[in-house]
Amino acid sequence: MLENVNEKCAVVGIFNHKDASKLAYFGLHALQHRGQEAAGISSGDGKKLHTIKDRGLVSQVFNNDILENTLVGDMAIGHTRYSTAGDDSILDAQPVHANYDLGQLSIVHNGNLINANEVRNELIQKGAIFQSSMDTENLIHLIAKSNQRKLKDRIIDAVHKIKGAYSLVFLSRSKMFAMRDPNGFRPLSLGRVGEGYVVASETCAFDLIGAEYMREVEPGEMLIFEKDKAPQSIKVFEAEPKHCIFEYVYFARPDSNVFGQNVYKNRKQMGIELAKEHPVEADMIVPVPDGGIPSAIGYSQESGIPFEMGIMRNHYIGRTFIEPTQEMRDLKVKMKLSPITSLIKGKKIIVIDDSIVRGTTSRRIIRMLKEAGAEEVHMRISSPPTTDPCFYGVDTPDKDKLIAANMSNQEICEYIEADSLAYLSTDALMRSVDGEASSYCTACFTGDYIL
Amino acid sequence: MLENVNEKCAVVGIFNHKDASKLAYFGLHALQHRGQEAAGISSGDGKKLHTIKDRGLVSQVFNNDILENTLVGDMAIGHTRYSTAGDDSILDAQPVHANYDLGQLSIVHNGNLINANEVRNELIQKGAIFQSSMDTENLIHLIAKSNQRKLKDRIIDAVHKIKGAYSLVFLSRSKMFAMRDPNGFRPLSLGRVGEGYVVASETCAFDLIGAEYMREVEPGEMLIFEKDKAPQSIKVFEAEPKHCIFEYVYFARPDSNVFGQNVYKNRKQMGIELAKEHPVEADMIVPVPDGGIPSAIGYSQESGIPFEMGIMRNHYIGRTFIEPTQEMRDLKVKMKLSPITSLIKGKKIIVIDDSIVRGTTSRRIIRMLKEAGAEEVHMRISSPPTTDPCFYGVDTPDKDKLIAANMSNQEICEYIEADSLAYLSTDALMRSVDGEASSYCTACFTGDYIL
Amino acid sequence: MLENVNEKCAVVGIFNHKDASKLAYFGLHALQHRGQEAAGISSGDGKKLHTIKDRGLVSQVFNNDILENTLVGDMAIGHTRYSTAGDDSILDAQPVHANYDLGQLSIVHNGNLINANEVRNELIQKGAIFQSSMDTENLIHLIAKSNQRKLKDRIIDAVHKIKGAYSLVFLSRSKMFAMRDPNGFRPLSLGRVGEGYVVASETCAFDLIGAEYMREVEPGEMLIFEKDKAPQSIKVFEAEPKHCIFEYVYFARPDSNVFGQNVYKNRKQMGIELAKEHPVEADMIVPVPDGGIPSAIGYSQESGIPFEMGIMRNHYIGRTFIEPTQEMRDLKVKMKLSPITSLIKGKKIIVIDDSIVRGTTSRRIIRMLKEAGAEEVHMRISSPPTTDPCFYGVDTPDKDKLIAANMSNQEICEYIEADSLAYLSTDALMRSVDGEASSYCTACFTGDYIL
Amino acid sequence: MLENVNEKCAVVGIFNHKDASKLAYFGLHALQHRGQEAAGISSGDGKKLHTIKDRGLVSQVFNNDILENTLVGDMAIGHTRYSTAGDDSILDAQPVHANYDLGQLSIVHNGNLINANEVRNELIQKGAIFQSSMDTENLIHLIAKSNQRKLKDRIIDAVHKIKGAYSLVFLSRSKMFAMRDPNGFRPLSLGRVGEGYVVASETCAFDLIGAEYMREVEPGEMLIFEKDKAPQSIKVFEAEPKHCIFEYVYFARPDSNVFGQNVYKNRKQMGIELAKEHPVEADMIVPVPDGGIPSAIGYSQESGIPFEMGIMRNHYIGRTFIEPTQEMRDLKVKMKLSPITSLIKGKKIIVIDDSIVRGTTSRRIIRMLKEAGAEEVHMRISSPPTTDPCFYGVDTPDKDKLIAANMSNQEICEYIEADSLAYLSTDALMRSVDGEASSYCTACFTGDYIL
Repeated sequence: MLENVNEKCAVVGIFNHKDASKLAYFGLHALQHRGQEAAGISSGDGKKLHTIKDRGLVSQVFNNDILENTLVGDMAIGHTRYSTAGDDSILDAQPVHANYDLGQLSIVHNGNLINANEVRNELIQKGAIFQSSMDTENLIHLIAKSNQRKLKDRIIDAVHKIKGAYSLVFLSRSKMFAMRDPNGFRPLSLGRVGEGYVVASETCAFDLIGAEYMREVEPGEMLIFEKDKAPQSIKVFEAEPKHCIFEYVYFARPDSNVFGQNVYKNRKQMGIELAKEHPVEADMIVPVPDGGIPSAIGYSQESGIPFEMGIMRNHYIGRTFIEPTQEMRDLKVKMKLSPITSLIKGKKIIVIDDSIVRGTTSRRIIRMLKEAGAEEVHMRISSPPTTDPCFYGVDTPDKDKLIAANMSNQEICEYIEADSLAYLSTDALMRSVDGEASSYCTACFTGDYIL
Repeated sequence: MLENVNEKCAVVGIFNHKDASKLAYFGLHALQHRGQEAAGISSGDGKKLHTIKDRGLVSQVFNNDILENTLVGDMAIGHTRYSTAGDDSILDAQPVHANYDLGQLSIVHNGNLINANEVRNELIQKGAIFQSSMDTENLIHLIAKSNQRKLKDRIIDAVHKIKGAYSLVFLSRSKMFAMRDPNGFRPLSLGRVGEGYVVASETCAFDLIGAEYMREVEPGEMLIFEKDKAPQSIKVFEAEPKHCIFEYVYFARPDSNVFGQNVYKNRKQMGIELAKEHPVEADMIVPVPDGGIPSAIGYSQESGIPFEMGIMRNHYIGRTFIEPTQEMRDLKVKMKLSPITSLIKGKKIIVIDDSIVRGTTSRRIIRMLKEAGAEEVHMRISSPPTTDPCFYGVDTPDKDKLIAANMSNQEICEYIEADSLAYLSTDALMRSVDGEASSYCTACFTGDYIL
Repeated sequence: MLENVNEKCAVVGIFNHKDASKLAYFGLHALQHRGQEAAGISSGDGKKLHTIKDRGLVSQVFNNDILENTLVGDMAIGHTRYSTAGDDSILDAQPVHANYDLGQLSIVHNGNLINANEVRNELIQKGAIFQSSMDTENLIHLIAKSNQRKLKDRIIDAVHKIKGAYSLVFLSRSKMFAMRDPNGFRPLSLGRVGEGYVVASETCAFDLIGAEYMREVEPGEMLIFEKDKAPQSIKVFEAEPKHCIFEYVYFARPDSNVFGQNVYKNRKQMGIELAKEHPVEADMIVPVPDGGIPSAIGYSQESGIPFEMGIMRNHYIGRTFIEPTQEMRDLKVKMKLSPITSLIKGKKIIVIDDSIVRGTTSRRIIRMLKEAGAEEVHMRISSPPTTDPCFYGVDTPDKDKLIAANMSNQEICEYIEADSLAYLSTDALMRSVDGEASSYCTACFTGDYIL
Repeated sequence: MLENVNEKCAVVGIFNHKDASKLAYFGLHALQHRGQEAAGISSGDGKKLHTIKDRGLVSQVFNNDILENTLVGDMAIGHTRYSTAGDDSILDAQPVHANYDLGQLSIVHNGNLINANEVRNELIQKGAIFQSSMDTENLIHLIAKSNQRKLKDRIIDAVHKIKGAYSLVFLSRSKMFAMRDPNGFRPLSLGRVGEGYVVASETCAFDLIGAEYMREVEPGEMLIFEKDKAPQSIKVFEAEPKHCIFEYVYFARPDSNVFGQNVYKNRKQMGIELAKEHPVEADMIVPVPDGGIPSAIGYSQESGIPFEMGIMRNHYIGRTFIEPTQEMRDLKVKMKLSPITSLIKGKKIIVIDDSIVRGTTSRRIIRMLKEAGAEEVHMRISSPPTTDPCFYGVDTPDKDKLIAANMSNQEICEYIEADSLAYLSTDALMRSVDGEASSYCTACFTGDYIL
């Protein structure tokens, strides 16, 4: 799967480090795969918060001057976003920053609230105004309206009024807070960097900035970072883990740990399970790069069929707006992917991909392989059929666009023009990862929504 | 005066015209001299408001696609802004747009509130959050919090709580409102365009879009624009006109009418009065372009001394960031202005400028003329000494930076190295414009603040 | 005249100054009105020449780093160009730089060769290759092919083979050469800057960089600049001056001296002569800015009719690509120019412009004034009818596009919808400038081509 | 090897296809890995050649408008270039275009001439001028100066005067020529597209545009493409193949065929040979992506040790100019590559790379793996030690910068901090590819320069 599904964002927070905004910058850099359309950082110098955000890649929004002279201070939170098209999208970049009765506050949010509209309407009825279309604005209002005196208690108040998926980081004048929903849908890890602390959506951010992984922020836990103190932990909700299994299947970087487990290892194990469940005779295993590589390696090791990089990915593409000529069919896929013809020609191939969303890309890939001379193409998917949209922070198409929600396995196989097609079962998927099956959200495969 | 003082913005509103956002665009284009750092337009199609705003010139922020496909509808309001540096300035572009209990609302504002901080603090105490540093955000909050049922009444409520200078245009789902403070500090005119209406800070916007001038929006008046109705006028406050005299002296375009009078004519009359009050023998009258041209023409016609464009203004400059060499003194002024040496050499010159703020530019100009061989340079200023900062929407330096607040006439004359210096008297200034002296704000010359 | 006719370029040369490339940069800045589409500088450090050139304004092509670190050395030549559209135009920027048998050579050229094609064809027949469509490339080939041993003699050889208009500056490893055609069509002045020398198309370049005017480079003269020597002058051709009269009429900056005379003074004198030749009763004189200002002042002083800036020019325009609505007629002119309606209304106006090329702009301006209520509009042009294209370096339209070549005075008057129209006579134009009439090229008015 | 060595360019030619310039565009797109700094296309419409070239990626230099409206005609040649820094580099983009006695000619060149300076000096002595520093300019001069009457014969004349590596494509008004040096150093393949023909540096260009591979252009062969004729072949030189072995080791895309063989297959075979020659016990094989992947697969299949993607490559990097903090060691490598820590920890690893140039990147990678907990890191290189610079079109550092030219195997092993290091032998490298060992240039490994 090369397109169609997008994580909506990533968050990072740095506390007590003299280069806080730079560390936030590099952290976002490592998390860029979770959102490429907008980026922002708020920093705090003990007196004032400073915020810069804009459309574009992390490397386009910031420069040395901004990081060193504007985003000063030893605390910083950052966000990178996959922004949906539409009016005014510039205002939908994060952090969301506001002045309220306790002073200044900035928030970054990874996830999606399912009662956002209700909360928003209720707040509006009470006189609040909303300047963006972001869920996150709700949080600031709830905090501003809380009767509690301390920010900590107001945050607790506020999160009791929202439902959904959230990994949040707050920055006030002197403190940083990290908070995760009771189900822990989206990941959030805690680390040490120098004398300070870092929280981030994935541990690959830690590796780049030289931070040391400590542990997960627990589902339902709030961490309070305060000067000259160890982070204080408050169990705001009882944890009922429902980790997003799609983080392992597709989103997270293979070198990251999320929910305490390594992504590459889990993804490879999915390939091993896939080989057990859906063996087929073939000359070689070929991954759809880059997503299908670890599971293809697993499938190969389990099946003994050789792994080959039979499809290469072109990384110099840039964006092209040139209209193709009539002869150039499937140009969009061919610009990104190309088959090693002389390897594939006359061969029976097992193609491994992480998922099928609409089916159009899979069809183009299989056609391309057949045109290159592949004798048979067997499609193996390292996750169950994606039948249901996500409401917890993943940007999936509507149900009527999801091919597996509308066609049988056999019909999909015909549509994508494969010689055979098989998906990993939900059980096998669960065997590929640590922990209880019940501790994962698999709604996109099962329709069993937790909330 | 070439720099140092800036109008903070301009507003435009279009109602009931199928090309509303394009008319707003060209209107802002004509008003670009009032603010070059950010621009924005909200349009309404009867169902929804659409907003695009960003840093940059009007021509940089918008393109055909945005105007035709995003900013759809037959109503539009626009803003162009001189933005002060600082964090987050992107959020300080207007229109300010919000969802609130009556639906959607966009506001543009020209002026400055003097009780903005009090209002803001009070609102914050009641649970409001502020996401920008703009006065304008107050308005939306006050409207959202009003107990009135109709937007019209809420606006009335809101403007009773604010003090200062404001020419406002509001856009709701189906109506447009224009509102001016009781003193009418900043200008706002009403016109017809096709079957619809236009309001704008200056009438030069009408000329470009082919609109017809109707009248001023009166101080304290609210105009309500509603489909299939003539604009409804509500006298919200008794008018106590205190028009900004500096609009005539410097800001407004010579081809505009503001406060019902033509700027060029008034400005030329100032030159005539200046010649009467402060005659001096000389070979020629030379304006500091472009500001000083109309009054120099007036001075010449009254005095009989020939008018000459002895200083030319260079319009191809672009921004240059090249550091000059040691020999290049006063490069910044010389890049913009250059003397016609062979005209000036050996001559006695009266130089006419509209005002002196810090004095540094005047000094550079006079030095440049002396270096070009001028025998005498007599400085004549077509307004009184600028002694006090403005709190009603003009971006003047602090009092300690205003040369006339800190030096005597004689001292200034010596500082700027002129052979003589004279300012227009306040009385003569008042004679140059129509209406009672009491109907103008002259606080920048007198320190008599109205509010 | 606001458009349609363009000077093709400007040149500058700096010799023996440690900031040579910076001085060249600022010199080009002052000469930007002669060409805005491409710019380039070659510098020499005694060992090697360095060249940077690109499309764009001078301020866009160069930055501090380029000027300080790439364009090193104490000699520099520069060029700014009005480039015609077409393939490969990037290669048509100057300086033209080449390696040849005597080493390295860079050339900048203002003017146009009339035997360029013949020379080029002859060179090509002898085995030369041409990589651009610039006349200037001929020069380098002629120099490279000369049998002379010294560059000085080769340049003399080369210029004997070309015909046309040329103000040239050459840079070799250790010397700079300036050379002007025997007719001196295009201007070139010599000045001192610090311990070094400067040559430039107009003296406004001297003023900006703090250089002192010495004299004109004479028609047919070559100047050789060599370390530790005064510039050596060689009379390559007998001077037969035929200075381009259009430099005074339109091109050159009013503050410049060209051909030894001040532009503003001459232009004003044209207005005086125009008033004598073509008086008409009116309420005011209004220039088409900026070109018509000096002659309008002259006309006013001679006629006693008041000068007014009845049309203002808008300087914030930027480029807009927004398509106007149907109601917006003549938008292109209105974006640039706007009438002071309340000044003009009901008045008889004399409009002064420097020339009429196609007539379309004049018509738009007069319509605009009539719509603003002018009772009568009398057009007075401070030069004779432009009937013939220029082949000596001015980019005029073909003869069939020149309105005065195809219509009688009366027809033009009707076409532009003026109440009367009169042009300055050639005799009167000659009286407006110093020197013999025979020392000017007036081919664009008379069709009497010198070559 | 991630950096340090660069192919200098790629060429493409399209003949007799109505979308010639578009096909050239997409061909260059596929060849973008061979040069990212400048790109250009010349097209021919039977009457005239049109050229557009500039700095930047292929997708940045061209747009639809240029391809459809400027680069018209049914013939086109293109070039993408790795340009060396320096003055004037914009002029060093190709195609080189010139007018000469037979009309117009454009040339693109992949390779490097070893007698370029001699030829250039000789040409300069005869009066030629050189406007760039490109070898390619020599060709046009030699052709222009040839006494032959036909272009075909002039090209033959010209290539007899040059020595070195060249795959050339020429475009004249009505014909296209492809020519390869007698040693065939650089690749050039021939294909059919629609009714027309294509030549390109690698066959991946054919795949993208839907062309069909026909055969190699032979070493020493010239192909003449003429309307309504099959391509005419002329054996200009006796073929003495000396194909660049580094094309297989590193440059060419795995999905390409060059010199008639598939790159992936050859590269994988190098891994197999490497496993035979230099086995070592380990837990896993890890490639340095992307270059080391095929040989790592080969090594794994031969050795039976599992292949793992233990290092991932980050593709969202963009360029960052942010200075790292002190803690961030080896940031440059870490931005691009990151280890799968939980996979590597405590493991014995064989790392496969294609080559070592300076050694610094290898050292950083090994340190990164050790920091991630690798117990042992054994470096295996799928080519012999790079001891000698290339003079035939590859941009290698000087000999004193090549680590293998200055250190023993043992010293390199210590320098890069590996537990063991082994290179593929030249013999084994030759066994990995088809054809006689003598038909390859291995000068970079042996110092045996052919010319």
